[in-house]
Amino acid sequence: MTDLKLTTMTRWTIKDNVRSNFQKKACLDLMFKTFNPPERILMGPGPSDVNPRILGALGRPTIGHLDPAFLGLMDEVKDLLRYAFKTENELTIPISAPGSAGMEACFANLVEPGDKVIVCSNGVFGGRMHENARRAGGEVLLLEHEWGKPVNPERLEQALKKNPDVSLVAMVHAETSTGVRSDAKTLCEIAKRFGCLTVLDCVTSLAGVEVAMDDWKVDAAYSGSQKCLSCVPGLSPISFSDEAVRKFKNRKTPVNSWFLDMNLVTDYWAGEEKRSYHHTAPVNSVYALHEALLILKEEGLEQSWKRHLENHTLLRNFLEDLGFRFLVDEEYRLPQLNAVILPPSLNEAETRLSLLNDYNIEVGPGLGALAGKIWRIGLMGYASNKRNVMTCVTAIKEKLGSF
Amino acid sequence: MTDLKLTTMTRWTIKDNVRSNFQKKACLDLMFKTFNPPERILMGPGPSDVNPRILGALGRPTIGHLDPAFLGLMDEVKDLLRYAFKTENELTIPISAPGSAGMEACFANLVEPGDKVIVCSNGVFGGRMHENARRAGGEVLLLEHEWGKPVNPERLEQALKKNPDVSLVAMVHAETSTGVRSDAKTLCEIAKRFGCLTVLDCVTSLAGVEVAMDDWKVDAAYSGSQKCLSCVPGLSPISFSDEAVRKFKNRKTPVNSWFLDMNLVTDYWAGEEKRSYHHTAPVNSVYALHEALLILKEEGLEQSWKRHLENHTLLRNFLEDLGFRFLVDEEYRLPQLNAVILPPSLNEAETRLSLLNDYNIEVGPGLGALAGKIWRIGLMGYASNKRNVMTCVTAIKEKLGSF
Repeated sequence: MTDLKLTTMTRWTIKDNVRSNFQKKACLDLMFKTFNPPERILMGPGPSDVNPRILGALGRPTIGHLDPAFLGLMDEVKDLLRYAFKTENELTIPISAPGSAGMEACFANLVEPGDKVIVCSNGVFGGRMHENARRAGGEVLLLEHEWGKPVNPERLEQALKKNPDVSLVAMVHAETSTGVRSDAKTLCEIAKRFGCLTVLDCVTSLAGVEVAMDDWKVDAAYSGSQKCLSCVPGLSPISFSDEAVRKFKNRKTPVNSWFLDMNLVTDYWAGEEKRSYHHTAPVNSVYALHEALLILKEEGLEQSWKRHLENHTLLRNFLEDLGFRFLVDEEYRLPQLNAVILPPSLNEAETRLSLLNDYNIEVGPGLGALAGKIWRIGLMGYASNKRNVMTCVTAIKEKLGSF
Repeated sequence: MTDLKLTTMTRWTIKDNVRSNFQKKACLDLMFKTFNPPERILMGPGPSDVNPRILGALGRPTIGHLDPAFLGLMDEVKDLLRYAFKTENELTIPISAPGSAGMEACFANLVEPGDKVIVCSNGVFGGRMHENARRAGGEVLLLEHEWGKPVNPERLEQALKKNPDVSLVAMVHAETSTGVRSDAKTLCEIAKRFGCLTVLDCVTSLAGVEVAMDDWKVDAAYSGSQKCLSCVPGLSPISFSDEAVRKFKNRKTPVNSWFLDMNLVTDYWAGEEKRSYHHTAPVNSVYALHEALLILKEEGLEQSWKRHLENHTLLRNFLEDLGFRFLVDEEYRLPQLNAVILPPSLNEAETRLSLLNDYNIEVGPGLGALAGKIWRIGLMGYASNKRNVMTCVTAIKEKLGSF
């Protein structure tokens, strides 16, 4: 850390003070070198620790994205994603960009100008859904909830009764900004009763707690590779029901985005016979996602949820003993993302930085109104293990002077 | 190859014939395993062979995208990209998605509904530009050229004279579908004389032939990580001039895309002091791009262009001796992408597949009307070396029975 700060400062100081281009070039030549990242323990809101097996897969030799071997891999990734989402949806693929692009793929394809949309928001990512729906041309009715509280099914039902022309309802399953879980099953059942398409943000929930896309009647779900799948960031698994597919196939207006137009993306992932070129898939990231999903399959979904819960319980007991309080009521807590209010004796930013510098542990700060007040301690995927819990608790105890 | 085909077929045959879910699950469990890609020589239109140093960088441990160490790396990547594009543009960053998203970032931000746009097209990617400009709401005047010929500066000038209300001119520097280079410098100078913003597709040109963004008065350029930079696919380096930045900062309408809104993306890459959260950068891919750019800097841009030309010349001499003809006139040929018409004695698809199966060499087929008629032989980045040229020529000779 200190070294790095110094290097960065030196670099800029030199750049500012060296007048001649020749000298500047010489200095820059000296300064750039291979980047060797510090070895962090990633217990923030994501990315989470990546399993070395996945890093190994990531670094294998690149092959062409139209190579027959890659086509076989794509088919396997689709099958494995169906397992993770608990769905039979044919259209189940990774979008070649981070979770934000997965969110945009849902709204850009399923919302047409003038469509009435309800977004249930209780944190940063609900707000982002609102923004996406708006940019797709939707008329958005925003059901705002207090941060840290789950979405209220009764409010959704009332809103749908008052607005029978709403055609799509969107919500965040696991709000990464607060660590709260909403009852996606109940919310989607209500929306479906009113004939709406349902969109669910599963970025932080997938593989950490149950997601049952088909049972819950979710029409479009998206996730991120870098949370409970423990893969590197950069891909966004998505799945669309047949009803969602019909919606974008029968649009009256073209999708704003060419890159995220599911009419085109679907054909790129259509399998050996029907495949047509769209963009160049991030081949190595797909290797990594395949390995991550394989690891999930080997452990089993149910066991993965169980492990996340066990490590959360262990951490919770320690933290409560040390004077931390949870932001979210127990019933709605995400085991993989612990939003905790610090005891008054700990300075938030100072302690967080010293965890990073002294222990290489990354925990996340609060966002918006919660900045400076809470930490978001992730126990996601590969990072959800007893050793990480104990290391983190030990570090906090030392900072509290109680070790 | 044969093994893989067999595995894939078996997999699907089992899936189709096994009725019970239990049996299906058991079969799937057996079938999925770690993917070990074949070791290809990538001489198609991209991705190209990735330098092992870059694969090494890619597989290093993931750190948080808000980690101070990552912020330092982002700054270095920006500096190194400025070197590659030959620009001083402050806004020079990699978009967290493939080249197609880089293209979309340019049009989605720089074109507002009703803006008049000229797209100079002479291949697949010019057509894609047209589609992007249209979806951004632009009124597009398409200057279509014969595939394999460069864009005609006189036609552009005439079109601008006739249409003084055009505000943006876009063109492909190196058309990946045909291997032709257009005179971007002259075309941009003309467009600037008429007060237009200029957008240049440098996906296949960057690092393979000269790209001099500032000298040529290019306002927005985008490239891909997987061509002459020899990095893994998945990132799209872009650079915007101050004039381009002013354009998107003063838009009357919001950008359709949230993920590619440069008002937001710019802040994410703004450096330690001013940085604000947008999406999660694909951390490991950024490690890889950094290493790729470092390798480019160590070799030197001019030397990289020289090497691409030398290996092209070597390949050309051999291929012409063997009865291949080049699609593109010598003056406009891209050394990194050789579009060649096969001698009549070679069956296109059969020979291409046998190069893949017998030699692990990937060359690209033709697209559109050129399908079945040409090959696109890439000599890009790390793949542009004498050994690859000789291996490819040897394989072709064997297929011709002349070895």
